[in-house]
Amino acid sequence: MKTVVTFGELMLRLAPEGYLRFVQADRLQATFGGGEANVAVSLANFGLNARFVTCLPAHEIGQAAVNSLRRYGVDTSYIARTGERVGIYYLEKGASQRPSKVIYDRAYSAIAQVGPDDLDWDAAFAGADWFHFTGITPALGDNVAAACLTACRKAKEKGLTVSCDLNFRKKLWTSEKAGQVMGQLMPYVDVCIANEEDAEKVFGIRADNTDVTGGKLDRAGYEQVARKLTERFGFHTVAITLRTSLSASDNQWAAMLYENGAAHFSKSYNVHIVDRVGGGDSFGAGLIYAKLAGYDPQAALEFAVAASCLKHAVEGDYNMMSVAEVQALAGGDGSGRVQR
Amino acid sequence: MKTVVTFGELMLRLAPEGYLRFVQADRLQATFGGGEANVAVSLANFGLNARFVTCLPAHEIGQAAVNSLRRYGVDTSYIARTGERVGIYYLEKGASQRPSKVIYDRAYSAIAQVGPDDLDWDAAFAGADWFHFTGITPALGDNVAAACLTACRKAKEKGLTVSCDLNFRKKLWTSEKAGQVMGQLMPYVDVCIANEEDAEKVFGIRADNTDVTGGKLDRAGYEQVARKLTERFGFHTVAITLRTSLSASDNQWAAMLYENGAAHFSKSYNVHIVDRVGGGDSFGAGLIYAKLAGYDPQAALEFAVAASCLKHAVEGDYNMMSVAEVQALAGGDGSGRVQR
Amino acid sequence: MKTVVTFGELMLRLAPEGYLRFVQADRLQATFGGGEANVAVSLANFGLNARFVTCLPAHEIGQAAVNSLRRYGVDTSYIARTGERVGIYYLEKGASQRPSKVIYDRAYSAIAQVGPDDLDWDAAFAGADWFHFTGITPALGDNVAAACLTACRKAKEKGLTVSCDLNFRKKLWTSEKAGQVMGQLMPYVDVCIANEEDAEKVFGIRADNTDVTGGKLDRAGYEQVARKLTERFGFHTVAITLRTSLSASDNQWAAMLYENGAAHFSKSYNVHIVDRVGGGDSFGAGLIYAKLAGYDPQAALEFAVAASCLKHAVEGDYNMMSVAEVQALAGGDGSGRVQR
Amino acid sequence: MKTVVTFGELMLRLAPEGYLRFVQADRLQATFGGGEANVAVSLANFGLNARFVTCLPAHEIGQAAVNSLRRYGVDTSYIARTGERVGIYYLEKGASQRPSKVIYDRAYSAIAQVGPDDLDWDAAFAGADWFHFTGITPALGDNVAAACLTACRKAKEKGLTVSCDLNFRKKLWTSEKAGQVMGQLMPYVDVCIANEEDAEKVFGIRADNTDVTGGKLDRAGYEQVARKLTERFGFHTVAITLRTSLSASDNQWAAMLYENGAAHFSKSYNVHIVDRVGGGDSFGAGLIYAKLAGYDPQAALEFAVAASCLKHAVEGDYNMMSVAEVQALAGGDGSGRVQR
Amino acid sequence: MKTVVTFGELMLRLAPEGYLRFVQADRLQATFGGGEANVAVSLANFGLNARFVTCLPAHEIGQAAVNSLRRYGVDTSYIARTGERVGIYYLEKGASQRPSKVIYDRAYSAIAQVGPDDLDWDAAFAGADWFHFTGITPALGDNVAAACLTACRKAKEKGLTVSCDLNFRKKLWTSEKAGQVMGQLMPYVDVCIANEEDAEKVFGIRADNTDVTGGKLDRAGYEQVARKLTERFGFHTVAITLRTSLSASDNQWAAMLYENGAAHFSKSYNVHIVDRVGGGDSFGAGLIYAKLAGYDPQAALEFAVAASCLKHAVEGDYNMMSVAEVQALAGGDGSGRVQR
Amino acid sequence: MKTVVTFGELMLRLAPEGYLRFVQADRLQATFGGGEANVAVSLANFGLNARFVTCLPAHEIGQAAVNSLRRYGVDTSYIARTGERVGIYYLEKGASQRPSKVIYDRAYSAIAQVGPDDLDWDAAFAGADWFHFTGITPALGDNVAAACLTACRKAKEKGLTVSCDLNFRKKLWTSEKAGQVMGQLMPYVDVCIANEEDAEKVFGIRADNTDVTGGKLDRAGYEQVARKLTERFGFHTVAITLRTSLSASDNQWAAMLYENGAAHFSKSYNVHIVDRVGGGDSFGAGLIYAKLAGYDPQAALEFAVAASCLKHAVEGDYNMMSVAEVQALAGGDGSGRVQR
Repeated sequence: MKTVVTFGELMLRLAPEGYLRFVQADRLQATFGGGEANVAVSLANFGLNARFVTCLPAHEIGQAAVNSLRRYGVDTSYIARTGERVGIYYLEKGASQRPSKVIYDRAYSAIAQVGPDDLDWDAAFAGADWFHFTGITPALGDNVAAACLTACRKAKEKGLTVSCDLNFRKKLWTSEKAGQVMGQLMPYVDVCIANEEDAEKVFGIRADNTDVTGGKLDRAGYEQVARKLTERFGFHTVAITLRTSLSASDNQWAAMLYENGAAHFSKSYNVHIVDRVGGGDSFGAGLIYAKLAGYDPQAALEFAVAASCLKHAVEGDYNMMSVAEVQALAGGDGSGRVQR
Repeated sequence: MKTVVTFGELMLRLAPEGYLRFVQADRLQATFGGGEANVAVSLANFGLNARFVTCLPAHEIGQAAVNSLRRYGVDTSYIARTGERVGIYYLEKGASQRPSKVIYDRAYSAIAQVGPDDLDWDAAFAGADWFHFTGITPALGDNVAAACLTACRKAKEKGLTVSCDLNFRKKLWTSEKAGQVMGQLMPYVDVCIANEEDAEKVFGIRADNTDVTGGKLDRAGYEQVARKLTERFGFHTVAITLRTSLSASDNQWAAMLYENGAAHFSKSYNVHIVDRVGGGDSFGAGLIYAKLAGYDPQAALEFAVAASCLKHAVEGDYNMMSVAEVQALAGGDGSGRVQR
Repeated sequence: MKTVVTFGELMLRLAPEGYLRFVQADRLQATFGGGEANVAVSLANFGLNARFVTCLPAHEIGQAAVNSLRRYGVDTSYIARTGERVGIYYLEKGASQRPSKVIYDRAYSAIAQVGPDDLDWDAAFAGADWFHFTGITPALGDNVAAACLTACRKAKEKGLTVSCDLNFRKKLWTSEKAGQVMGQLMPYVDVCIANEEDAEKVFGIRADNTDVTGGKLDRAGYEQVARKLTERFGFHTVAITLRTSLSASDNQWAAMLYENGAAHFSKSYNVHIVDRVGGGDSFGAGLIYAKLAGYDPQAALEFAVAASCLKHAVEGDYNMMSVAEVQALAGGDGSGRVQR
Repeated sequence: MKTVVTFGELMLRLAPEGYLRFVQADRLQATFGGGEANVAVSLANFGLNARFVTCLPAHEIGQAAVNSLRRYGVDTSYIARTGERVGIYYLEKGASQRPSKVIYDRAYSAIAQVGPDDLDWDAAFAGADWFHFTGITPALGDNVAAACLTACRKAKEKGLTVSCDLNFRKKLWTSEKAGQVMGQLMPYVDVCIANEEDAEKVFGIRADNTDVTGGKLDRAGYEQVARKLTERFGFHTVAITLRTSLSASDNQWAAMLYENGAAHFSKSYNVHIVDRVGGGDSFGAGLIYAKLAGYDPQAALEFAVAASCLKHAVEGDYNMMSVAEVQALAGGDGSGRVQR
Repeated sequence: MKTVVTFGELMLRLAPEGYLRFVQADRLQATFGGGEANVAVSLANFGLNARFVTCLPAHEIGQAAVNSLRRYGVDTSYIARTGERVGIYYLEKGASQRPSKVIYDRAYSAIAQVGPDDLDWDAAFAGADWFHFTGITPALGDNVAAACLTACRKAKEKGLTVSCDLNFRKKLWTSEKAGQVMGQLMPYVDVCIANEEDAEKVFGIRADNTDVTGGKLDRAGYEQVARKLTERFGFHTVAITLRTSLSASDNQWAAMLYENGAAHFSKSYNVHIVDRVGGGDSFGAGLIYAKLAGYDPQAALEFAVAASCLKHAVEGDYNMMSVAEVQALAGGDGSGRVQR
Repeated sequence: MKTVVTFGELMLRLAPEGYLRFVQADRLQATFGGGEANVAVSLANFGLNARFVTCLPAHEIGQAAVNSLRRYGVDTSYIARTGERVGIYYLEKGASQRPSKVIYDRAYSAIAQVGPDDLDWDAAFAGADWFHFTGITPALGDNVAAACLTACRKAKEKGLTVSCDLNFRKKLWTSEKAGQVMGQLMPYVDVCIANEEDAEKVFGIRADNTDVTGGKLDRAGYEQVARKLTERFGFHTVAITLRTSLSASDNQWAAMLYENGAAHFSKSYNVHIVDRVGGGDSFGAGLIYAKLAGYDPQAALEFAVAASCLKHAVEGDYNMMSVAEVQALAGGDGSGRVQR
């Protein structure tokens, strides 16, 4: 069984029930999520050996975060139990023209205060095949960026494949800072994942003729972005997710994979959204799985897009889908007929 | 008031709330359902005298099953209180490309262990006008098939109209076994109901040029299936429901009625799904009601399709719609405007 | 800060959870709502000083009604604590072809038994800029219509702008009675709001060539209705909301504003409905806000339509949207992309 | 199987969840209850044929009330579907020193507006053995009192045993009015049930040396009250429940039965309260059952007290206990050990 | 109407439902609370004009905090909308021998980062009669202690009565630091409130012969503590609450009031606990109300103890009791009989 | 870290919310439990390495069962994924005099159909220190008893300590059968755990002068039972839990430990019950932990009793307590004071 290590923050996700707004709620669904943890859970659900590395406080809220991963089979042995608080993000689910809203309360969390010796990368990477992180992790602070850099170096030394989802968050850092920090990390990265905005926001690389808010997608433009990224950083693979947001309830979802100078485009899905958060992460997990399973580029892309398409119909950050379920959709059955 | 008797299994339906997957749920909605019980409840809601025949244990879970029928006015006097367990089906509601999933835990249930003398058909059929069952009931075991045969014979002797929804379930029996057992029951049946796959799966009768997974419907093909069924078994009426599954969230829904050599096609509805389970049963109930009320074939068909269209917007197995509500839709008002 | 006074009934709204029908529910969501209170809450959410005038019993259910307004910043100082009961409306949420259903239990409520001296209009209007009511209020009884008339007179004397949403409810009064009572109130009204049916139902004024149930909208027809209304009653502004009900789940939503002989038409939105109740009220609130903020007619109309479009994605009667959120949609971003 | 007819109001009971106060709740548990309906359900749960007579509106809220009875096997055939509203009582559950609180909203309900010809007593009493009502029913209005009187006369003519629980409610009428109306009904009554206050509040008959608020019980005093009641009205049996309210969470519960000049006192139970409402009604049902089953006075009393003791551990108005369960407690097992 | 100003932190309180432990919960009840806010709400429920001063972020979580106060009538006009985060406390409700557990996540909250000019004390104190704070507020940081000192000085200048509940929290500061900071504030305080441990933990003043864990109360000891406090700081009144914790489910609750050299002891209540948090705050609110209403010392004490006794039967931090309800208990009716 | 292996059935536990009876519930709490799994979870919560051995189906309900263990850190690597169904037990929580009720639906479950080669004991016992099972496991069928015997033999061969909780269940087998099967297993057992009835029900060994239903405990009698058990089977240790069931809400709880000819009696706790199921299992887990930690007999007993005392205040089968929490109670603090 292949082993994948991911590194990042695991937050408590507090969300009003159904479509209530924050100010209407007197109960909050309390689950956990975060880009890299989401990838770990999805990979564990695919049957891989997934290890998640982070810092979490020793108290019961930290323990509940750990348990949310163990429940789905993620190996939590490499989590440092340090710090005082679990980062939080408040999520209000949107509908129709009303957008979803996220309020972050993640400053001063355990991982944001990680020290240079808190994490044991040698142990975490022992026998591992792949290391994954996203642009959110180094954005949490210079100390976390330093930990990221250490991890990348160690991973490379040990021969792991390294993937990174650019995942730019403007509330965490500026484009300038992101470009500088991420620029140092990219040389270690083999597989770069981005959405339609990230390349521009982080590295100033943009697709010509693309109007994101208008949802206009231009194949040639995306290919161009991937090529430029590859040229600048020497990536083996670049994957770009292509979301057309018709409303908070309905999106179109597809992706492009660029490898060895060739761009592959996936089928496009019309998704009726149950929970949109973690959609990108589930794409990343699908791609990592498919790569480790030796799929060819088009098949890997279709698997990753089908996985993330299905994530939009799953509550919570974590993608609770099996390989068989993803393959069924990638194989063409999107009819949603009852399985009985 | 007309009296309809239905016979089958009533199961405990355990479903996670909302769109949670099985492995995410720590609470389950506990309702009851089963093809023939669903028909009985729908008919009681239409104001008919509906009797449901089954076996259920004497303990409180069995009592809760009985109560779920009494609550909506079904006559439960003919239920034998025997056996040890209430059959269960676990239901996970799908959305978008993620299909709904059913896990059966119905083996060894009270009805599956029915003995030859447990049910009193003379009492159940006293003064009754119609007997209805589905292909699920005889699939539960040879003893249950025998009870079905007894019921069909008795019903015919007493002059009741007999209807059967083929309802093939591949997890319960093979096509071969189904064809053999159902073949013995069909001679007693006046009104045969099927979905677009059943005729082929049970009797090997297929519509030419129909691609079910592709959702391609061909009117002539369905007419052909109905004609073949009629020719083989001497049915008075054949009704075929026509579902096009765009996704787990959106379906198209229509039906065909074949009678006296003529095929009638209903309007087609675009349904945004609240709960898809019981959709076929609600069609059957609508058809039985309309037939007993003396509707002409087209009107009967439109009533049945409208009833089942509305069922897709009702939670649970049972169709909670009145005659007036169904007539309003069949009469053309599908605008869903607030009634106030 | 501008001050708006609204007058009407605040009811307890009892609704089954999710899409359960009344007869399936053993728990009811208990919120509060009513046309004019909805306007007051929406205006308070826009940052205006909103006063709501009504009668409510002194007991805890009356207090809970008051609290539901205070919570969102409405000034409840002018509510008379009289009477025995809080009016109730039971709401069953529809979906797809199944319409939403309202059962009123509002007779004998505190406001329906308002006496001539229960309300202190001089206090309520002190320093106020705008008075708003709907056709529901005078429909509650002759005593309430008298209170309405008193309020209109007082408001005019004090120089307030007066707006009225015709809001015809056939369960409360006949068209004949409505026409007579409303005819007496209209001379005090500056801004008249109506939906596509109200003008005909209340005053017999109809748009030529309009087939409401078919959802066919004719711009010229609506302009004609607005012109006739203006000619008969001397309104400064007439606004007509234009709803095309595709189903209980999906509507199209737009509006027309007629002022100074010119008709302005808004963008049209495809709304996927979370909660349709209060949609018209949120339009009224948007219009009042925009007028008080000095928007030009087209901008005012677009603000009001965007506000009410968003309301359809909010649970409960009250529109929980800020000015910034409404402006974002009116300004063109209806993509529903996550705000983070 | 013995048949018992009860007559009264069935109300919608709206209660915040758990121990929330009214002003804290945004959801309400929606069940149904009312003194005589509670007796009917308890008797149906004991296996008797229980008919409940009342008026309820034809709409869905009225239907839900009917269904709540059918669910537990009560015969609802004799309910007149008339009127506009279902009476409501709001219930806030107390705890420790905080008392439970009831707010009635039952005026103008269907039964409160019963007309002289709405109810068919000949049908309701056909083949029946016992008629039961409480003092709440005639308190609803002179028309309801008249219906009560008609029922009592008819019941007596047909040879039914008649029981009445005095159940004085000061919010419904004065002691003076109660005494006058109840005084006319008592001559028809065979079995009179009262709590420790009713006899004084309705008929001015009091136990000497009894301090209710102090919870001081004096056996001789209660015997004296029963004797006076018997002497005045010629009752065959008088039963008085004896509650010592230590707090809203803990009560002591016992009763006395007076028959043929002899007073019998039951065991006393220390009850830890789940839901106290309907405690008296469950005693009445227990007594009726035991009388119809031919129990001797002490056994009948112990059965009735055990039944009502158990009711305090059941949510809702209805007592959901079987004869076997009551007998187990009456027989001495109050240890509450798990039954498995 | 008297006006009381309180100053402190308002936190989001996240609690598992019922008796679930933190690691078992996937939903959290989201209410708000904090010592001084609790006092403000209780006073508003008593009908006083209560102003709460704090800092809260401008985002929706901050707004929900504000709304929780407005809902119950607290004047929130003096709250500064500053900072990034709302402080949180996680609460796990205990039962029997399992204690309740609190995990604080309040560092870096808006109020903890209050600046010297963020709060407008002149406005907040305009026309006010009383100022209240607790020892938690100055424990939040030196800047908050400075704000406290400013408030005390201003309050004294304007002639307000000042009360302080010592409320020592060992997770916020040491006894040494507390003694030093509180020592500077006490000269401004007229009414000092403490529990059985505070005086010792903050000022090293202890009751002789008191064994807190054993729950042994010694009247003379408490009087001695109060006298020492009075002598050191010149308080007008000292009140000490006396809790005997039998278990997490059952406590005894009483208090002592020391004034003009005389100690008054209240009745003692056996409380069966619904929610113990805020018990001390409700005592403070009761005392402030009673003092402002001119009660004599014994009556004031009994009112305060009855108020806080009832709080233990109310969910959430806020005491939702009216003056009439408190008076009923203080007046002797603790029987918890249903109010109907 | 010590390693403990337990073997038994893990069932889906379906329980109405709060104190609802089965026939009132339309939602069920869905957790998992079973004697030996409960022990495993408790030990994992104590920080030991706990392995649970069973059979569970490969489908999602089986997976959810596995996940419920992984979540709390139990090693599920040795669970065979075989069979069709997850055993179920329905649990209705009692209160006051109403007892809790269990309905088993566990026949034909995966473990009940275990084959001779399904389980890999060599792997499960590798490096392990202790093996634990209860009398429920061999009661599931002769095949399961055979598996139990194999496990016991293997455990002994490998030098593990073996413990057994007699746990007689009369619904699973007769005393005669139990005595015969258990008699074969006892020779492998070192530590025997029983409640006050088990020894008599399984082996006919009874305490003289003990009246269980009356709750009368006689120290000498229990010592006698332990001595007889030891003499017959050569146990090293016998522990007997002593429950006095005052009601379903309140129990007294204590235990005796017999070792080396000496009987040790624990403190007795008055427990106010949150969830009584799993009380015995938590005692067993406490005892195993304490033994492995080298506690002396009295300390081990006190730890085990404190652990199980706390379990009564925890929802669900699993005991969610840490060693520190148990030690705090065993050390004397049962005051339940808030930990903050």
